[in-house]
Amino acid sequence: MSAAREPFDAVDVIAVKRDGGTLDTARIRWLVDAFTRGVVADEQMAAWAMAVLLNGMDRREIRDLTLAMIDSGERMSFAGLGRPTVDKHSTGGVGDKITLPLAPLVAVFGVAVPQLSGRGLGHTGGTLDKLESIPGWRPDLSPEALRAQLADVGAAICAAGADLAPADKRLYALRDTTGTVEAIPLIASSIMSKKIAEGTASLVLDVKFGSGAFLPARAQAEELARTMVELGRDAGVATVALLTDMSVPLGLTAGNAIEVEESVEVLAGGGPADVRALTVALAAEMLALAGVADADPAAALDDGRAMDVWRRMIRAQGGDPDAPLPVAAESQQVLAETDGVLATQDAKAVGVAAWRLGAGRARQGDPVQHAAGVRLHAKPGDAVRAGQPLATLLTDDADRIPRALEALEGAMSIAPAGTEVPREPLIAARIA
Amino acid sequence: MSAAREPFDAVDVIAVKRDGGTLDTARIRWLVDAFTRGVVADEQMAAWAMAVLLNGMDRREIRDLTLAMIDSGERMSFAGLGRPTVDKHSTGGVGDKITLPLAPLVAVFGVAVPQLSGRGLGHTGGTLDKLESIPGWRPDLSPEALRAQLADVGAAICAAGADLAPADKRLYALRDTTGTVEAIPLIASSIMSKKIAEGTASLVLDVKFGSGAFLPARAQAEELARTMVELGRDAGVATVALLTDMSVPLGLTAGNAIEVEESVEVLAGGGPADVRALTVALAAEMLALAGVADADPAAALDDGRAMDVWRRMIRAQGGDPDAPLPVAAESQQVLAETDGVLATQDAKAVGVAAWRLGAGRARQGDPVQHAAGVRLHAKPGDAVRAGQPLATLLTDDADRIPRALEALEGAMSIAPAGTEVPREPLIAARIA
Repeated sequence: MSAAREPFDAVDVIAVKRDGGTLDTARIRWLVDAFTRGVVADEQMAAWAMAVLLNGMDRREIRDLTLAMIDSGERMSFAGLGRPTVDKHSTGGVGDKITLPLAPLVAVFGVAVPQLSGRGLGHTGGTLDKLESIPGWRPDLSPEALRAQLADVGAAICAAGADLAPADKRLYALRDTTGTVEAIPLIASSIMSKKIAEGTASLVLDVKFGSGAFLPARAQAEELARTMVELGRDAGVATVALLTDMSVPLGLTAGNAIEVEESVEVLAGGGPADVRALTVALAAEMLALAGVADADPAAALDDGRAMDVWRRMIRAQGGDPDAPLPVAAESQQVLAETDGVLATQDAKAVGVAAWRLGAGRARQGDPVQHAAGVRLHAKPGDAVRAGQPLATLLTDDADRIPRALEALEGAMSIAPAGTEVPREPLIAARIA
Repeated sequence: MSAAREPFDAVDVIAVKRDGGTLDTARIRWLVDAFTRGVVADEQMAAWAMAVLLNGMDRREIRDLTLAMIDSGERMSFAGLGRPTVDKHSTGGVGDKITLPLAPLVAVFGVAVPQLSGRGLGHTGGTLDKLESIPGWRPDLSPEALRAQLADVGAAICAAGADLAPADKRLYALRDTTGTVEAIPLIASSIMSKKIAEGTASLVLDVKFGSGAFLPARAQAEELARTMVELGRDAGVATVALLTDMSVPLGLTAGNAIEVEESVEVLAGGGPADVRALTVALAAEMLALAGVADADPAAALDDGRAMDVWRRMIRAQGGDPDAPLPVAAESQQVLAETDGVLATQDAKAVGVAAWRLGAGRARQGDPVQHAAGVRLHAKPGDAVRAGQPLATLLTDDADRIPRALEALEGAMSIAPAGTEVPREPLIAARIA
């Protein structure tokens, strides 16, 4: 067996980042390619990722890394669909079901929305897990079926294929076990490599900060948003980011079936104000990028057009939009101890509680409980009375309730009646 | 199979170092133990090592790491030998053969010197490789044989067993491929864990700086020396370090058999002044730590007592001190191009040349050529004449000569006659 001689040495490439230097395009492309081929070992890539986390990468390096990730796999294209395409990505949060009403809403206006999604891990839920609580609904679409559904219905929410940016998949799994998830250059290139490989023409990013977000610090979330907007621009994908608050759960549900239920309320013109507002704001950004002038997304929620697309989208993937959603076997209410005003409702705590109730998974591949989760009965600033339910815990397995209650300890506090509860605006900034 | 529950999570432990925090004793001990058991994977340890390299460790953490490394294997003890024990460690350099004359010299004064040594890798030579050029000499001694030789002869230079600090061996191999060799806390704990596990009562360190050293920058070498002296003190091993210059090769030989030859010259009361001076200085430090008052090591070189111990030490391990040493099949001289004063003689370049001639190995387990190396014919400051040999390259394989000559290009420069060549003192500092 004769090995082809490698143009670079892994230790030298690691040392450049370790010593605060800048890697050239050739070395970055080689690193990703050699990692994919197994020539650069996991332990070498882990040491490099830690050096990147601590010493950073510049804009050109991040772009090179992203392009190298894309080139490790297939690229999709939605050219020739006869509709402009626009995609949305959220960095994830507690109660973030926005993709469900958003994709059909945008499709109302003749835009194709190919929403390739993932599953949840940890305290933030996964879009596919939520939709799978709809009887019959299937996440997997072949590239041909996806294309046909986009041409016909306009919206599809489905599983991303294994062929998109496989180097990123391998690096992501490695980062997950080596304490290097939080590296902004690596987060940005991971998200953007998949979105660019999907072949969308434009992209709206929902980058969250606050306790329930992946990056709780606003400054870090903002840096991530800027990095991704620059990356999109450099790759020819029109990209806009909204920086949104995730210190409080989005809406009044965190789980799977209960989030579908809330999404359907929004599609019916109702639903919690924050979920509706964010859905409409993101739709407006997506429609603007797609070149649709004078669209009124709020009207499309109110007059049933978005609901019509939703029903067609669910049916196209085998789901029955009229079937009853699963209901939890067990429930327990959390009651207000005093009269007053709900002052805090910590997103992370609610997310962890929902996760412990069975709505999320501890390890990749674990099943989730479709009916499990947390239903909230008040938002911060609402007046509450002693004995009134603040939340209902839902699960198929009563044994899970005590640890969910533990997660919620101190998460919801009540201030004296009349207290002014300051509430941050949901959309903190727009980055374009 | 049911796994015992681990008390800590590797990602959490990595994150502490990544975020600039301090690891407590329990977490450090767990990390080393879990790495030894294979519960912490190579990629996790590599990410942690990079975080340590970039964020450092404090004195207590380094001590805990060192003790955990020691506890991963066997501990030796030389209690009850009837002689005090003292050991020496050099961080390695070009032409550094000091262990060879030093161990028998110190043993002259009734002190036991258990010198567990390694092999060379890269441009610095290995003590065992040098001694193996003596016909019949064997590096391996059982613990019992080592003890008997120390009781009888007083000095032994032998291979370290695999049971000493095995976690360090595994971590060292990992650092070698992940760009994390240069982490001072990891270098210090690696060296000191082996020395403390050997059970010596006191230790003299020769920490080198300059182009031929492992850490060329003096400030870094000094930090390493201080770290190791503190570690020795914390572990109850009386420790002194000399900070010595390795910008120029030590003595006039860099290789294996030719370094043995030069060592024997020193043991006969002659040899290059720098090799003799450093041998005597390190012997004086070792004897002081061992509590031997009024020893005169220089006299023991001049009157043959050190040579007597050398001959007994070599014979005790099967070697014939009177056998002729191997001679290289091929040689080539490097001549002075002009008259003048030898101004520079770069240690790194000479080391690389000797290595390329076959004196060292590129990979662990490769054989070395015993007769290969570089013989120098002048020291910086010496007057030279055009056409005079400055160096002789020795190898069994003429094909190796061109690349060795390349390594030497620009390494030796000649200044006009009468130029004052500043020479740094060999011993730059003493740290105790």
